[in-house]
Amino acid sequence: MTRTPPIILGILAISVTTTLAAQFTPRALMPPEELIQYRQAGYRFMKWNMERIKINLNREYNQDQVIAAANAVAAIANSGMGALYLPGTEEDIGDVETDVKPSFFKNAEDVARLARSFIAAANDLAETAKTGDQRAVHTAFGEVAESCKACHDKYRDD
Amino acid sequence: MTRTPPIILGILAISVTTTLAAQFTPRALMPPEELIQYRQAGYRFMKWNMERIKINLNREYNQDQVIAAANAVAAIANSGMGALYLPGTEEDIGDVETDVKPSFFKNAEDVARLARSFIAAANDLAETAKTGDQRAVHTAFGEVAESCKACHDKYRDD
Repeated sequence: MTRTPPIILGILAISVTTTLAAQFTPRALMPPEELIQYRQAGYRFMKWNMERIKINLNREYNQDQVIAAANAVAAIANSGMGALYLPGTEEDIGDVETDVKPSFFKNAEDVARLARSFIAAANDLAETAKTGDQRAVHTAFGEVAESCKACHDKYRDD
Repeated sequence: MTRTPPIILGILAISVTTTLAAQFTPRALMPPEELIQYRQAGYRFMKWNMERIKINLNREYNQDQVIAAANAVAAIANSGMGALYLPGTEEDIGDVETDVKPSFFKNAEDVARLARSFIAAANDLAETAKTGDQRAVHTAFGEVAESCKACHDKYRDD
């Protein structure tokens, strides 16, 4: 066997590492434009459920519907949507537009803080919904809406 | 006061009835094009989570991620998406296109049967995910994928 020059070994090592990284990161497995669409789908579906809860609070209260809607919001909030903000998803890609501000990607700690606050509020709403206490649901719903807005105000282009 | 002619009273009555109905039906509260977008968001977000579970099964298994993904699928499945198929949402509306076949709206019993089967499979996947038994998760995942496909084959235009 001939000895492989170190420079070639180095290139091979980098190549293998890059390939492995590409295989095991969601970014390579899912195109960035799909990640943008997935995160937008999550927010849109939560919006429907928040709208339904609001309608229930303002009009006729259906406890089963509020529980189902709050569970959907909580499960989406807990799904790990951070994985949908990988590098390459900062800007519009072709027809797929994103409203996220560049600053979102530069303030990981603040974003994490807002995310934790949102998840806590969503979990609380789901728990409160089960009690059927409409006044408490109203308050918990307001907390979720506030935590949505806190992030939108800072990190979403309107 | 002058007496209001009966014909005018009749028109007023119809008008009031229509307004009340419009206020209290989700259709009037949410435009049909939004309902189409909400249901598509639900399916797309479930697709992300199904893709993640598949990646976990085929590559490196992360139990927390599979649990979170399966919970999201189950919560969306149980959210009552039937409310997003109200009259007026059968066809494209402007730029908002839908792939649902007209036959979907004419076979309520069959659609309900498929929906129940899908919800049962999604709930089973969420329960199985908690056990961490990868072989069982693989089987339960397959059941959900089959139940998605069963409805797509019948009622979705490709």
